[in-house]
Amino acid sequence: MTQEPMSPEPDSTGPADEDGRNTRHRDRMVRKKAVIDDKIAKAQRDCGVIVVTTGNGKGKSSSGFGMVVRAMGHGMKTGVVQFIKGAIPTGEEKFLRRFPEACEFHVMGEGYTWDTQDRERDIAKAQAAWAQARRMLRDPAFGLVLFDELNIALKLGYLDVDAVIADLNARPEMQHVVITGRGAPQALIDAAHTVTDMTPVKHAFSEGIRAQPGVEM
Amino acid sequence: MTQEPMSPEPDSTGPADEDGRNTRHRDRMVRKKAVIDDKIAKAQRDCGVIVVTTGNGKGKSSSGFGMVVRAMGHGMKTGVVQFIKGAIPTGEEKFLRRFPEACEFHVMGEGYTWDTQDRERDIAKAQAAWAQARRMLRDPAFGLVLFDELNIALKLGYLDVDAVIADLNARPEMQHVVITGRGAPQALIDAAHTVTDMTPVKHAFSEGIRAQPGVEM
Repeated sequence: MTQEPMSPEPDSTGPADEDGRNTRHRDRMVRKKAVIDDKIAKAQRDCGVIVVTTGNGKGKSSSGFGMVVRAMGHGMKTGVVQFIKGAIPTGEEKFLRRFPEACEFHVMGEGYTWDTQDRERDIAKAQAAWAQARRMLRDPAFGLVLFDELNIALKLGYLDVDAVIADLNARPEMQHVVITGRGAPQALIDAAHTVTDMTPVKHAFSEGIRAQPGVEM
Repeated sequence: MTQEPMSPEPDSTGPADEDGRNTRHRDRMVRKKAVIDDKIAKAQRDCGVIVVTTGNGKGKSSSGFGMVVRAMGHGMKTGVVQFIKGAIPTGEEKFLRRFPEACEFHVMGEGYTWDTQDRERDIAKAQAAWAQARRMLRDPAFGLVLFDELNIALKLGYLDVDAVIADLNARPEMQHVVITGRGAPQALIDAAHTVTDMTPVKHAFSEGIRAQPGVEM
């Protein structure tokens, strides 16, 4: 298996004598394997982890759905609560709704205020969505749950971050939680085990290409 | 639908008079919606995109598998070539192999040289994997293809980046390609439409927690 933080970072080599190159390569890989094996030996604890994907780049939600699929592949029951709903059903929703036993899928209300422009209504919808999330966090049958775009609800102040973290910390010991969305609050980053900032390098949208089914939705 | 680069970045607001707050919120959201609508109006082109996820943080491969699932949800045929194989079958492999009509799944040889320490053999395996990838790139039946950890093979010099890019650019017009792995070469970043650097903020591994099924594999 590939363990992200200790994967070797092999250098590419320029043209060189092939025999010497192969020997050096083998020596380097032997040393790298020793370093990796040592790190693996030191990380042996199992527990449910909190994973947060944030930042402005593409990949936050899709990474969350990738983990849902991984968990389903291991026979785990999964849950999804989406805290933003668009006008068009997404590919992930259409696909995962085919497996109601393995993935319980909820989508919150009718989207946020950049469409509806009504703050009170948005708060009520976010809180109803969190009630679904909290029910999953109290049920050890769920091996992995995804709260997609929860960070947006926290950032907008629709949900109280301390109450959310208290619910997260009270979850079953082996349950994994994945939380996505821009602008993750610092308290949530502190509470999480694994946090990635998805940093945009470039985006097709800037070249006038609109969101593509299968890629962005 | 959520279009990543132009999603609004709403500010959280402090305690304030509720009526005034709601009015200001509504005004701000009206303005944001206008900005977003304008940007959407300017991005109307459809084409197959090349997405690259790189960097040292968690989320590169899982994001790729999330896009595979999205595409399957839209009824697209997908293909996966994994350029690194671990000792243990991953959750994504176990899950996606259930749908051979919708997802053609290939895993390269027996892993790279930090396990096998044999460069010549690795090159042969990477090239055989690329032959599978190239076949998909020539077949318009595939709507989205994922070349997982291809960046590693490029970085190690097992495949020629210019030849790979030539094959990518010759693909069917509407086919999407997702390429993952640390150390994406600059030429590939230049050739791609959307590139995200997955920047690690923290990782469970550093706390002595090993890779968890459903999350890392």
